[in-house]
Amino acid sequence: MTEKLSETTRGPLLEPLFATGWAMVEGRDAIQKTYKFKNFVEAFGWMTQVAIWSEKWNHHPEWFNVYNRVEVVLSTHDVEGLSALDAKLARKMDALAS
Amino acid sequence: MTEKLSETTRGPLLEPLFATGWAMVEGRDAIQKTYKFKNFVEAFGWMTQVAIWSEKWNHHPEWFNVYNRVEVVLSTHDVEGLSALDAKLARKMDALAS
Repeated sequence: MTEKLSETTRGPLLEPLFATGWAMVEGRDAIQKTYKFKNFVEAFGWMTQVAIWSEKWNHHPEWFNVYNRVEVVLSTHDVEGLSALDAKLARKMDALAS
Repeated sequence: MTEKLSETTRGPLLEPLFATGWAMVEGRDAIQKTYKFKNFVEAFGWMTQVAIWSEKWNHHPEWFNVYNRVEVVLSTHDVEGLSALDAKLARKMDALAS
């Protein structure tokens, strides 16, 4: 079962992400990050890898792309806020971008 | 050379697109359309096909995706407005979505 992050689980899961450039979305229990790549092929190649993991985990991002830039917002619709799945997908995105 | 659409070329190129659901973006010489698919796999599969044509034509969309929805904006950076490339990419997007 997916659950909204509790006060105690929130820190340990989110703090490492804030250290890599993730931030809370203003007025929403969601996290955001903007990735910049060398060009469109690199950006969309990364999106394609993320897309396959997203579908496998049945957890999909909100994302905007223009050329080499991808702006991502993660949140869990079912719990109307952040869950452990968001942290997991965020870590995967960072790993695939590095 | 890519050129901004003139008053005379604009109508013939854009009218057929307006008929398929494209619309002008408020306050910008750009066109937009929202596509809805059956699910994420269909949506991202379509994006992947569009991405390859975009790169081939060196003309990239601004697009936002969440699950089965893709919101697209097309405009030509080099001419600060619409060019024939936007109409060409819009027609390709429609063809790939149909």
